[in-house]
Amino acid sequence: MENFNFYSPTEFVFGKDRAVEAGHFVKKYGGSKVLIHYGGGSAVKSGLIGKVKKSLDEAGVKYCELGGVQPNPRDTLVYKGIDLCRAEGVDFILAVGGGSVIDSAKAIAIGVPYDGDFWDMYSGKPVGKALPVATVLTIAAAGSEGSGDSVITKEDGMLKRGTGSDLLRPKFSIMEPTLTQTLPAYQTACGATDIMAHVFERYFTNTTEVEITDRLCEAVLLTMIKETPRVIADPDNYEARANIMWAGTVAHTNICGVGRQQDWNSHGLEHELSGLYDVAHGAGLAVIMPAWMEYVHKHNVMRFCQMATRVFGCQMNFEDPEATALEGIHRFRAFLKSIGMPINFTELGAREEDIPALVEKFGIGDGRTGGFMQLDAHDITEIYKIAAHASL
Amino acid sequence: MENFNFYSPTEFVFGKDRAVEAGHFVKKYGGSKVLIHYGGGSAVKSGLIGKVKKSLDEAGVKYCELGGVQPNPRDTLVYKGIDLCRAEGVDFILAVGGGSVIDSAKAIAIGVPYDGDFWDMYSGKPVGKALPVATVLTIAAAGSEGSGDSVITKEDGMLKRGTGSDLLRPKFSIMEPTLTQTLPAYQTACGATDIMAHVFERYFTNTTEVEITDRLCEAVLLTMIKETPRVIADPDNYEARANIMWAGTVAHTNICGVGRQQDWNSHGLEHELSGLYDVAHGAGLAVIMPAWMEYVHKHNVMRFCQMATRVFGCQMNFEDPEATALEGIHRFRAFLKSIGMPINFTELGAREEDIPALVEKFGIGDGRTGGFMQLDAHDITEIYKIAAHASL
Repeated sequence: MENFNFYSPTEFVFGKDRAVEAGHFVKKYGGSKVLIHYGGGSAVKSGLIGKVKKSLDEAGVKYCELGGVQPNPRDTLVYKGIDLCRAEGVDFILAVGGGSVIDSAKAIAIGVPYDGDFWDMYSGKPVGKALPVATVLTIAAAGSEGSGDSVITKEDGMLKRGTGSDLLRPKFSIMEPTLTQTLPAYQTACGATDIMAHVFERYFTNTTEVEITDRLCEAVLLTMIKETPRVIADPDNYEARANIMWAGTVAHTNICGVGRQQDWNSHGLEHELSGLYDVAHGAGLAVIMPAWMEYVHKHNVMRFCQMATRVFGCQMNFEDPEATALEGIHRFRAFLKSIGMPINFTELGAREEDIPALVEKFGIGDGRTGGFMQLDAHDITEIYKIAAHASL
Repeated sequence: MENFNFYSPTEFVFGKDRAVEAGHFVKKYGGSKVLIHYGGGSAVKSGLIGKVKKSLDEAGVKYCELGGVQPNPRDTLVYKGIDLCRAEGVDFILAVGGGSVIDSAKAIAIGVPYDGDFWDMYSGKPVGKALPVATVLTIAAAGSEGSGDSVITKEDGMLKRGTGSDLLRPKFSIMEPTLTQTLPAYQTACGATDIMAHVFERYFTNTTEVEITDRLCEAVLLTMIKETPRVIADPDNYEARANIMWAGTVAHTNICGVGRQQDWNSHGLEHELSGLYDVAHGAGLAVIMPAWMEYVHKHNVMRFCQMATRVFGCQMNFEDPEATALEGIHRFRAFLKSIGMPINFTELGAREEDIPALVEKFGIGDGRTGGFMQLDAHDITEIYKIAAHASL
């Protein structure tokens, strides 16, 4: 196990009818003038924004608002948010929505107290200061409600880049599983795929003897395999929604990723897909991640056997371990298909002829990208090719 | 799943050579005058206290010290600590030791800013205020480094009582697995038993459909079953020590216990044992917990089957589920024996003739105590009797 620091100070406020507590918690964590940040009209139409405003009113907290966050949230709205916050004297950002809204809120939180362009922090500069952020989560997926991470897309060139800092960890996150019950099945499945991907990015490691984090990763994956089909079949299954929602947080606070080298190449490869085609991040991951697994499995066949047996219930083939490894990957892809996810470029709406452009945008040049298995431009091309043609 | 709040703001500083960072972290969390609180001389002799002092000196933080915390920490030393802190103007308590030292530190932290007797908070009064506490952990066991709990023994009558508050969650906890390598095998095994017990107290619940927390509980248990025999066989196995140490924290921050009713009757029953005989808490749990399981297993045979198959690798007996349940309990007790734990009163140094006194001290009267299965005085007597005579 490697040395690590783990710090997850977010207060999670989980369960039925919790959004009415937003005002209380904003006050508890020192907010006096709030930006309510949200996406499309659904948070307004459903009455959620109204409920949050009422709660802020009752707590005596002032607010202004900015909607319009899109999936793969854009820098353009972030600039607008920064200007608004400065003009209104906002000291606290409350994101009401899913990962995109929360990531956009974190970017605004970075930008308000920063003299230069907030994009500096998405180009490698460490975050020095940020307004406090909190969330009312409406989609179980990104884990942004418990993480210090944020990913933003620069509209000019559709460049998708991320940043991270403990300063961006939300002060509190209100998590009402009922709010996710209105999500269409496709978006629910995209979220589930993202949650599983967050675990796999940590699971495939070259660090040995990390049983506790291995087992915690497997706990989240096993939960997702049990609960996801239940919400696809019955969107109103509160218990399954609740299990998925908490699993999504556990998957990304990093409690199951500490002390070990992590990968994240699948996320990198996917970012180019959703950047170019504006597809859902989870859908892109469903296409990329099993392809990445197929390409890298020989790097450590036994680790894939562990996944296959412990997570996907395969019987170990002791005469042919590689067969077990491949069976595990096959079962993962079949699971994704079963919950309605695309598994190749055609189903995703991507084009094989764009692969050179995707590789170019990945920006690896003659270098390699680290992680479980180091990849160069040739490797990345091959993974995109597997993803293009995959079938069950 | 039930509604819950989860808040674990402790910064965990984990790995090799981290104690030298104590000064930096005390300063980061606002301490200017520290009480270094510790147990016997081993923390001094090993050079750990010296290392911590040097680190505080280098950070320009003043300190005073109070050693002498015993296992099952006493109120008498807490009073001494409160007086010392008030006299010296201490604003930060740094516990260097295991669960007993940390629990004592938390009690002092409660007592310093409180006008009355700190014992009030161990008699049901909520904690209103507390000095900040931090830890340098030397034993993987109690989970007190990440929890808001504290248990103190009142010397007059050897009454063992607990309190809990988010205010008692440590600001930071330095966790060096190497510090646990000098522990005798018996104490190591006591710690491992305590860790497993913290999980089982949460695992046995009447709340249904809590797959994520079930799986997280099982993750910790599976890790303990793999790693504990390795450190008993080889005390210097850093990797096994590290896995156990992080498992001990995960077991008790409550991340695997949220949203579900919990039990804690085994801890209650054990507190009377270690109160009366001053035996190690983990050893008492090794005797009590399997006995409790045997007594209550009929309350939910399928939950015990889940434990038996998922945690102890039993094959499910579909014709006779109860046989599987009992086999799981048997394997747990055999595991405890294999790591050197006592499994009955004789091995623990307890006496069957004291059972009426133990039940009396438990103080249940004509009432019942809640949890997985409600217990009355008769039930408790029967559990102690099973514990008295248990064998493999």
